[in-house]
Amino acid sequence: MKKNQGILISFEGGEGVGKTVQIKQLADVLKTKGYDVVITREPGGTVISEQIREVILSTKNIGMAFTTEVLLFQAARAQIYRELILPSLKAGKVVLCDRTRDSSVVYQGIVRGFGKKLIEQLNDISTKNTYPNLTILLDVPVEIGLSRRHNCEKVNRLDLEQKDFHEKVRKGYLKLAEKNDHKRWLVIDGSKSIEEVHEEILEKIKANKIFQ
Amino acid sequence: MKKNQGILISFEGGEGVGKTVQIKQLADVLKTKGYDVVITREPGGTVISEQIREVILSTKNIGMAFTTEVLLFQAARAQIYRELILPSLKAGKVVLCDRTRDSSVVYQGIVRGFGKKLIEQLNDISTKNTYPNLTILLDVPVEIGLSRRHNCEKVNRLDLEQKDFHEKVRKGYLKLAEKNDHKRWLVIDGSKSIEEVHEEILEKIKANKIFQ
Repeated sequence: MKKNQGILISFEGGEGVGKTVQIKQLADVLKTKGYDVVITREPGGTVISEQIREVILSTKNIGMAFTTEVLLFQAARAQIYRELILPSLKAGKVVLCDRTRDSSVVYQGIVRGFGKKLIEQLNDISTKNTYPNLTILLDVPVEIGLSRRHNCEKVNRLDLEQKDFHEKVRKGYLKLAEKNDHKRWLVIDGSKSIEEVHEEILEKIKANKIFQ
Repeated sequence: MKKNQGILISFEGGEGVGKTVQIKQLADVLKTKGYDVVITREPGGTVISEQIREVILSTKNIGMAFTTEVLLFQAARAQIYRELILPSLKAGKVVLCDRTRDSSVVYQGIVRGFGKKLIEQLNDISTKNTYPNLTILLDVPVEIGLSRRHNCEKVNRLDLEQKDFHEKVRKGYLKLAEKNDHKRWLVIDGSKSIEEVHEEILEKIKANKIFQ
Protein backbone atom coordinates (compact mmCIF):
# COMPACT_ATOMS: atom_id res chain seq x y z
CA MET A 1 0.00 0.00 0.00
CA LYS A 2 1.29 3.38 -0.99
CA LYS A 3 1.11 6.03 1.65
CA ASN A 4 2.92 8.77 -0.15
CA GLN A 5 -0.16 10.45 -1.55
CA GLY A 6 -3.48 11.39 -0.06
CA ILE A 7 -6.78 9.71 -0.75
CA LEU A 8 -10.13 11.48 -0.71
CA ILE A 9 -13.18 9.33 -0.01
CA SER A 10 -16.61 10.94 0.08
CA PHE A 11 -19.76 9.48 1.61
CA GLU A 12 -22.96 10.54 -0.06
CA GLY A 13 -26.67 9.80 0.24
CA GLY A 14 -29.87 11.28 1.62
CA GLU A 15 -30.83 12.01 5.21
CA GLY A 16 -30.29 9.22 7.75
CA VAL A 17 -28.54 6.74 5.44
CA GLY A 18 -25.76 6.25 7.97
CA LYS A 19 -22.89 8.26 6.55
CA THR A 20 -21.58 9.58 9.87
CA VAL A 21 -21.44 6.23 11.67
CA GLN A 22 -19.89 4.44 8.68
CA ILE A 23 -17.23 7.11 8.29
CA LYS A 24 -16.28 6.67 11.93
CA GLN A 25 -15.99 2.89 11.58
CA LEU A 26 -13.98 3.09 8.37
CA ALA A 27 -11.70 5.67 9.96
CA ASP A 28 -11.03 3.33 12.89
CA VAL A 29 -10.02 0.50 10.54
CA LEU A 30 -7.77 2.76 8.46
CA LYS A 31 -6.11 4.15 11.58
CA THR A 32 -5.27 0.67 12.83
CA LYS A 33 -3.63 0.07 9.44
CA GLY A 34 -1.42 3.08 10.03
CA TYR A 35 -3.12 5.69 7.92
CA ASP A 36 -3.37 9.27 9.04
CA VAL A 37 -7.11 9.86 8.74
CA VAL A 38 -8.98 13.17 8.64
CA ILE A 39 -12.77 13.23 8.98
CA THR A 40 -14.73 16.18 7.64
CA ARG A 41 -18.31 17.11 7.04
CA GLU A 42 -20.00 19.56 4.73
CA PRO A 43 -21.28 22.11 5.11
CA GLY A 44 -18.92 22.75 8.00
CA GLY A 45 -15.68 21.19 9.16
CA THR A 46 -13.74 24.39 9.87
CA VAL A 47 -14.49 27.25 12.24
CA ILE A 48 -15.51 29.50 9.34
CA SER A 49 -17.43 26.79 7.48
CA GLU A 50 -19.36 25.92 10.64
CA GLN A 51 -20.48 29.54 10.90
CA ILE A 52 -21.73 29.27 7.32
CA ARG A 53 -23.39 25.93 8.13
CA GLU A 54 -25.27 27.61 10.95
CA VAL A 55 -26.66 30.23 8.57
CA ILE A 56 -27.67 27.55 6.04
CA LEU A 57 -29.39 25.21 8.49
CA SER A 58 -30.97 27.61 10.97
CA THR A 59 -34.74 27.09 11.03
CA LYS A 60 -35.16 30.85 11.42
CA ASN A 61 -33.79 31.32 7.90
CA ILE A 62 -36.82 29.78 6.23
CA GLY A 63 -36.94 32.73 3.79
CA MET A 64 -33.53 31.93 2.33
CA ALA A 65 -33.47 32.30 -1.45
CA PHE A 66 -32.42 29.16 -3.23
CA THR A 67 -29.52 30.85 -4.99
CA THR A 68 -28.28 32.08 -1.60
CA GLU A 69 -28.27 28.50 -0.33
CA VAL A 70 -26.36 27.32 -3.41
CA LEU A 71 -23.68 29.95 -2.91
CA LEU A 72 -23.39 29.39 0.86
CA PHE A 73 -22.74 25.69 0.38
CA GLN A 74 -20.02 26.56 -2.09
CA ALA A 75 -18.52 29.16 0.23
CA ALA A 76 -18.31 26.62 3.05
CA ARG A 77 -16.78 24.14 0.60
CA ALA A 78 -14.17 26.63 -0.61
CA GLN A 79 -13.04 27.13 2.99
CA ILE A 80 -12.78 23.48 3.99
CA TYR A 81 -10.90 22.54 0.83
CA ARG A 82 -8.32 25.27 1.28
CA GLU A 83 -7.98 25.03 5.03
CA LEU A 84 -8.21 21.29 5.56
CA ILE A 85 -8.85 18.89 2.66
CA LEU A 86 -6.25 19.99 0.12
CA PRO A 87 -3.46 20.44 2.70
CA SER A 88 -4.31 17.01 4.17
CA LEU A 89 -4.17 15.32 0.77
CA LYS A 90 -0.88 17.04 0.07
CA ALA A 91 0.45 15.64 3.34
CA GLY A 92 -0.52 12.12 2.25
CA LYS A 93 -3.49 11.70 4.57
CA VAL A 94 -6.75 9.86 3.98
CA VAL A 95 -9.65 12.31 4.04
CA LEU A 96 -13.16 10.99 4.67
CA CYS A 97 -15.85 13.52 3.74
CA ASP A 98 -19.39 13.39 5.06
CA ARG A 99 -20.85 14.94 1.88
CA THR A 100 -19.00 17.04 -0.66
CA ARG A 101 -19.50 18.20 -4.27
CA ASP A 102 -22.04 15.54 -5.28
CA SER A 103 -24.44 16.69 -2.57
CA SER A 104 -24.70 20.03 -4.34
CA VAL A 105 -25.10 18.33 -7.72
CA VAL A 106 -27.96 16.17 -6.45
CA TYR A 107 -29.82 18.47 -4.04
CA GLN A 108 -29.45 21.70 -5.97
CA GLY A 109 -28.44 20.85 -9.52
CA ILE A 110 -30.78 17.92 -10.16
CA VAL A 111 -33.59 17.95 -7.59
CA ARG A 112 -34.16 21.68 -7.40
CA GLY A 113 -33.30 22.28 -11.04
CA PHE A 114 -30.47 24.78 -10.69
CA GLY A 115 -28.64 22.81 -13.35
CA LYS A 116 -25.90 20.23 -12.96
CA LYS A 117 -23.54 22.15 -15.23
CA LEU A 118 -23.69 25.38 -13.23
CA ILE A 119 -23.27 23.53 -9.93
CA GLU A 120 -20.25 21.67 -11.28
CA GLN A 121 -18.73 24.98 -12.40
CA LEU A 122 -19.15 26.29 -8.85
CA ASN A 123 -17.83 22.98 -7.47
CA ASP A 124 -14.73 23.35 -9.60
CA ILE A 125 -14.16 26.84 -8.17
CA SER A 126 -14.73 25.78 -4.57
CA THR A 127 -12.73 22.52 -4.71
CA LYS A 128 -9.98 23.72 -7.05
CA ASN A 129 -11.09 21.04 -9.51
CA THR A 130 -10.76 18.25 -6.97
CA TYR A 131 -12.78 15.01 -7.25
CA PRO A 132 -12.92 12.25 -4.64
CA ASN A 133 -10.88 9.15 -5.45
CA LEU A 134 -13.85 7.16 -4.27
CA THR A 135 -17.47 8.10 -3.55
CA ILE A 136 -19.48 5.72 -1.40
CA LEU A 137 -23.20 6.12 -1.94
CA LEU A 138 -25.23 4.73 0.96
CA ASP A 139 -28.60 3.95 -0.56
CA VAL A 140 -31.57 3.61 1.78
CA PRO A 141 -35.34 3.84 1.13
CA VAL A 142 -36.54 7.31 2.11
CA GLU A 143 -38.90 6.16 4.90
CA ILE A 144 -36.09 4.34 6.68
CA GLY A 145 -33.65 7.22 6.32
CA LEU A 146 -36.02 9.86 7.62
CA SER A 147 -37.22 7.74 10.54
CA ARG A 148 -33.61 7.07 11.59
CA ARG A 149 -32.81 10.74 11.43
CA HIS A 150 -35.82 11.93 13.36
CA ASN A 151 -34.98 9.52 16.13
CA CYS A 152 -31.51 10.81 16.72
CA GLU A 153 -31.11 14.44 15.78
CA LYS A 154 -32.65 17.84 16.09
CA VAL A 155 -34.85 18.62 13.07
CA ASN A 156 -33.24 21.22 10.82
CA ARG A 157 -34.56 23.37 8.00
CA LEU A 158 -33.75 20.87 5.27
CA ASP A 159 -35.65 18.12 7.11
CA LEU A 160 -38.81 20.14 6.67
CA GLU A 161 -38.81 19.35 2.95
CA GLN A 162 -41.50 17.04 1.71
CA LYS A 163 -40.97 13.31 1.33
CA ASP A 164 -41.19 13.68 -2.44
CA PHE A 165 -38.09 15.85 -2.26
CA HIS A 166 -36.14 13.07 -0.53
CA GLU A 167 -37.32 10.54 -3.13
CA LYS A 168 -35.89 12.78 -5.84
CA VAL A 169 -32.63 13.02 -3.89
CA ARG A 170 -32.36 9.24 -3.79
CA LYS A 171 -33.03 8.89 -7.51
CA GLY A 172 -30.60 11.69 -8.29
CA TYR A 173 -27.80 9.93 -6.44
CA LEU A 174 -28.53 6.59 -8.09
CA LYS A 175 -28.46 8.27 -11.48
CA LEU A 176 -25.05 9.83 -10.78
CA ALA A 177 -23.71 6.51 -9.52
CA GLU A 178 -24.99 4.73 -12.61
CA LYS A 179 -23.33 7.26 -14.86
CA ASN A 180 -20.20 6.83 -12.74
CA ASP A 181 -18.12 9.70 -14.09
CA HIS A 182 -14.48 9.48 -13.02
CA LYS A 183 -15.11 5.79 -12.15
CA ARG A 184 -15.34 6.62 -8.50
CA TRP A 185 -18.81 5.51 -7.37
CA LEU A 186 -19.61 2.55 -5.12
CA VAL A 187 -23.25 1.92 -4.21
CA ILE A 188 -23.91 0.22 -0.89
CA ASP A 189 -27.27 -0.93 0.47
CA GLY A 190 -27.43 1.14 3.64
CA SER A 191 -30.62 -0.44 4.97
CA LYS A 192 -28.72 -3.39 6.46
CA SER A 193 -27.25 -3.34 9.96
CA ILE A 194 -24.40 -0.98 10.75
CA GLU A 195 -21.99 -3.90 10.98
CA GLU A 196 -23.09 -5.44 7.68
CA VAL A 197 -22.80 -2.14 5.87
CA HIS A 198 -19.38 -1.59 7.40
CA GLU A 199 -18.18 -5.01 6.21
CA GLU A 200 -19.51 -4.39 2.70
CA ILE A 201 -17.71 -1.05 2.56
CA LEU A 202 -14.44 -2.70 3.59
CA GLU A 203 -14.86 -5.46 0.99
CA LYS A 204 -15.70 -3.07 -1.81
CA ILE A 205 -12.83 -0.75 -0.95
CA LYS A 206 -10.51 -3.75 -0.94
CA ALA A 207 -11.82 -4.88 -4.34
CA ASN A 208 -11.48 -1.35 -5.64
CA LYS A 209 -7.76 -1.44 -4.81
CA ILE A 210 -7.67 2.23 -4.00
CA PHE A 211 -5.21 1.61 -1.17
CA GLN A 212 -2.92 -0.64 -3.22
CA MET B 1 -41.09 62.23 -14.10
CA LYS B 2 -42.21 58.66 -14.56
CA LYS B 3 -42.85 56.77 -11.40
CA ASN B 4 -44.23 53.61 -12.89
CA GLN B 5 -40.97 51.70 -12.86
CA GLY B 6 -38.26 51.26 -10.29
CA ILE B 7 -34.83 52.81 -10.43
CA LEU B 8 -31.70 51.23 -9.01
CA ILE B 9 -28.88 53.59 -8.04
CA SER B 10 -25.68 52.18 -6.58
CA PHE B 11 -23.04 54.08 -4.66
CA GLU B 12 -19.53 52.74 -5.03
CA GLY B 13 -16.04 53.65 -3.90
CA GLY B 14 -13.40 52.69 -1.34
CA GLU B 15 -13.54 52.92 2.43
CA GLY B 16 -14.64 56.24 3.92
CA VAL B 17 -15.57 58.00 0.67
CA GLY B 18 -18.93 59.01 2.14
CA LYS B 19 -21.36 56.60 0.50
CA THR B 20 -23.60 56.13 3.54
CA VAL B 21 -24.10 59.82 4.32
CA GLN B 22 -24.67 60.74 0.68
CA ILE B 23 -27.23 57.98 0.23
CA LYS B 24 -29.14 59.28 3.22
CA GLN B 25 -29.16 62.84 1.88
CA LEU B 26 -30.21 61.77 -1.61
CA ALA B 27 -32.95 59.59 -0.13
CA ASP B 28 -34.31 62.59 1.81
CA VAL B 29 -34.50 64.68 -1.36
CA LEU B 30 -36.18 61.92 -3.36
CA LYS B 31 -38.69 61.29 -0.58
CA THR B 32 -39.73 64.94 -0.52
CA LYS B 33 -40.32 64.61 -4.27
CA GLY B 34 -42.71 61.77 -3.60
CA TYR B 35 -40.59 58.76 -4.44
CA ASP B 36 -40.81 55.59 -2.42
CA VAL B 37 -37.15 55.08 -1.51
CA VAL B 38 -35.49 51.91 -0.25
CA ILE B 39 -31.95 52.08 1.16
CA THR B 40 -29.81 48.94 1.18
CA ARG B 41 -26.23 48.02 1.87
CA GLU B 42 -24.07 45.12 0.81
CA PRO B 43 -23.06 42.80 2.16
CA GLY B 44 -26.16 42.82 4.34
CA GLY B 45 -29.53 44.51 4.13
CA THR B 46 -31.71 41.52 5.03
CA VAL B 47 -31.75 39.37 8.15
CA ILE B 48 -30.05 36.51 6.31
CA SER B 49 -27.59 38.74 4.44
CA GLU B 50 -26.60 40.45 7.69
CA GLN B 51 -25.73 37.04 9.16
CA ILE B 52 -23.52 36.45 6.13
CA ARG B 53 -22.03 39.95 6.50
CA GLU B 54 -21.08 39.10 10.06
CA VAL B 55 -19.18 36.01 8.91
CA ILE B 56 -17.40 38.01 6.18
CA LEU B 57 -16.36 40.95 8.33
CA SER B 58 -15.63 39.31 11.68
CA THR B 59 -12.03 39.97 12.67
CA LYS B 60 -11.85 36.45 14.10
CA ASN B 61 -12.19 35.04 10.57
CA ILE B 62 -8.75 36.22 9.50
CA GLY B 63 -8.08 32.76 8.00
CA MET B 64 -10.90 33.04 5.48
CA ALA B 65 -9.90 31.74 2.05
CA PHE B 66 -10.27 34.29 -0.67
CA THR B 67 -12.63 32.11 -2.70
CA THR B 68 -14.82 31.73 0.40
CA GLU B 69 -15.05 35.50 0.69
CA VAL B 70 -15.98 35.80 -3.00
CA LEU B 71 -18.80 33.29 -2.64
CA LEU B 72 -20.11 34.75 0.64
CA PHE B 73 -20.46 38.20 -0.92
CA GLN B 74 -22.41 36.63 -3.76
CA ALA B 75 -24.60 34.65 -1.37
CA ALA B 76 -25.49 37.82 0.55
CA ARG B 77 -26.19 39.54 -2.78
CA ALA B 78 -28.44 36.75 -4.02
CA GLN B 79 -30.55 37.12 -0.88
CA ILE B 80 -30.94 40.89 -0.92
CA TYR B 81 -31.83 40.96 -4.62
CA ARG B 82 -34.54 38.33 -4.25
CA GLU B 83 -35.88 39.48 -0.92
CA LEU B 84 -35.68 43.25 -1.29
CA ILE B 85 -34.16 44.86 -4.39
CA LEU B 86 -35.98 43.07 -7.21
CA PRO B 87 -39.42 43.20 -5.50
CA SER B 88 -38.87 46.91 -4.74
CA LEU B 89 -37.98 47.68 -8.34
CA LYS B 90 -41.00 45.73 -9.50
CA ALA B 91 -43.13 47.87 -7.20
CA GLY B 92 -41.77 51.04 -8.81
CA LYS B 93 -39.55 52.12 -5.93
CA VAL B 94 -36.18 53.86 -6.01
CA VAL B 95 -33.52 51.61 -4.53
CA LEU B 96 -30.28 53.16 -3.29
CA CYS B 97 -27.55 50.57 -2.76
CA ASP B 98 -24.52 51.15 -0.58
CA ARG B 99 -22.28 48.92 -2.75
CA THR B 100 -23.39 46.18 -5.08
CA ARG B 101 -21.97 44.15 -7.99
CA ASP B 102 -19.16 46.57 -8.90
CA SER B 103 -17.65 46.22 -5.42
CA SER B 104 -17.04 42.55 -6.16
CA VAL B 105 -15.64 43.35 -9.59
CA VAL B 106 -13.18 45.87 -8.15
CA TYR B 107 -12.17 44.31 -4.82
CA GLN B 108 -12.10 40.70 -5.92
CA GLY B 109 -12.05 40.60 -9.70
CA ILE B 110 -9.50 43.34 -10.36
CA VAL B 111 -7.53 44.05 -7.17
CA ARG B 112 -7.20 40.49 -5.92
CA GLY B 113 -7.01 39.00 -9.37
CA PHE B 114 -9.92 36.57 -9.23
CA GLY B 115 -10.83 37.76 -12.69
CA LYS B 116 -13.46 40.27 -13.74
CA LYS B 117 -15.17 37.75 -16.02
CA LEU B 118 -15.71 35.13 -13.33
CA ILE B 119 -16.99 37.73 -10.86
CA GLU B 120 -19.42 39.08 -13.42
CA GLN B 121 -20.69 35.54 -14.06
CA LEU B 122 -21.33 35.17 -10.33
CA ASN B 123 -22.87 38.68 -10.24
CA ASP B 124 -25.26 37.68 -13.00
CA ILE B 125 -26.33 34.63 -10.96
CA SER B 126 -26.76 36.59 -7.72
CA THR B 127 -28.50 39.64 -9.24
CA LYS B 128 -30.55 37.79 -11.88
CA ASN B 129 -28.70 39.81 -14.52
CA THR B 130 -29.60 43.14 -12.94
CA TYR B 131 -27.47 46.27 -13.44
CA PRO B 132 -27.96 49.60 -11.67
CA ASN B 133 -29.57 52.31 -13.79
CA LEU B 134 -26.96 54.63 -12.35
CA THR B 135 -23.73 54.05 -10.43
CA ILE B 136 -22.31 56.96 -8.46
CA LEU B 137 -18.59 56.56 -7.81
CA LEU B 138 -17.41 58.70 -4.91
CA ASP B 139 -13.72 59.19 -5.54
CA VAL B 140 -11.51 60.20 -2.64
CA PRO B 141 -7.74 59.94 -2.11
CA VAL B 142 -6.99 56.86 0.00
CA GLU B 143 -5.47 58.75 2.98
CA ILE B 144 -8.58 60.86 3.38
CA GLY B 145 -10.96 57.92 3.07
CA LEU B 146 -9.14 55.76 5.59
CA SER B 147 -8.73 58.58 8.12
CA ARG B 148 -12.47 59.37 7.91
CA ARG B 149 -13.34 55.78 8.44
CA HIS B 150 -11.03 55.21 11.37
CA ASN B 151 -12.53 58.21 13.13
CA CYS B 152 -16.08 56.98 13.00
CA GLU B 153 -16.35 53.20 12.91
CA LYS B 154 -15.08 50.03 14.46
CA VAL B 155 -12.15 48.62 12.50
CA ASN B 156 -13.19 45.50 10.58
CA ARG B 157 -11.21 42.76 8.88
CA LEU B 158 -11.10 44.48 5.49
CA ASP B 159 -9.68 47.65 7.06
CA LEU B 160 -6.63 45.66 8.05
CA GLU B 161 -5.54 45.49 4.41
CA GLN B 162 -2.53 47.50 3.44
CA LYS B 163 -2.79 51.01 2.04
CA ASP B 164 -1.53 49.72 -1.29
CA PHE B 165 -4.64 47.57 -1.48
CA HIS B 166 -6.89 50.61 -1.12
CA GLU B 167 -4.93 52.46 -3.82
CA LYS B 168 -5.62 49.58 -6.17
CA VAL B 169 -9.30 49.71 -5.24
CA ARG B 170 -9.44 53.39 -6.14
CA LYS B 171 -7.72 52.81 -9.49
CA GLY B 172 -9.96 49.83 -10.21
CA TYR B 173 -13.08 51.90 -9.73
CA LEU B 174 -11.79 54.75 -11.87
CA LYS B 175 -10.97 52.26 -14.61
CA LEU B 176 -14.49 50.82 -14.57
CA ALA B 177 -16.01 54.30 -14.60
CA GLU B 178 -13.83 55.29 -17.53
CA LYS B 179 -14.90 52.24 -19.47
CA ASN B 180 -18.48 53.07 -18.49
CA ASP B 181 -20.21 49.87 -19.61
CA HIS B 182 -23.99 50.23 -19.69
CA LYS B 183 -23.47 54.05 -19.66
CA ARG B 184 -24.31 54.17 -15.98
CA TRP B 185 -21.27 55.63 -14.22
CA LEU B 186 -21.00 59.10 -12.66
CA VAL B 187 -17.74 60.05 -10.96
CA ILE B 188 -17.98 62.56 -8.11
CA ASP B 189 -15.08 64.11 -6.20
CA GLY B 190 -15.89 62.92 -2.70
CA SER B 191 -13.15 64.88 -0.95
CA LYS B 192 -15.26 68.05 -0.83
CA SER B 193 -17.67 68.85 2.00
CA ILE B 194 -20.72 66.66 2.51
CA GLU B 195 -22.99 69.46 1.31
CA GLU B 196 -20.92 70.17 -1.81
CA VAL B 197 -20.83 66.50 -2.74
CA HIS B 198 -24.57 66.23 -2.16
CA GLU B 199 -25.24 69.21 -4.46
CA GLU B 200 -23.01 67.77 -7.17
CA ILE B 201 -24.83 64.44 -6.98
CA LEU B 202 -28.19 66.19 -7.36
CA GLU B 203 -26.93 68.23 -10.33
CA LYS B 204 -25.45 65.23 -12.09
CA ILE B 205 -28.54 63.09 -11.52
CA LYS B 206 -30.63 65.93 -12.93
CA ALA B 207 -28.37 66.22 -15.98
CA ASN B 208 -28.49 62.46 -16.39
CA LYS B 209 -32.29 62.64 -16.72
CA ILE B 210 -32.75 59.27 -15.06
CA PHE B 211 -35.89 60.53 -13.29
CA GLN B 212 -37.41 62.11 -16.37
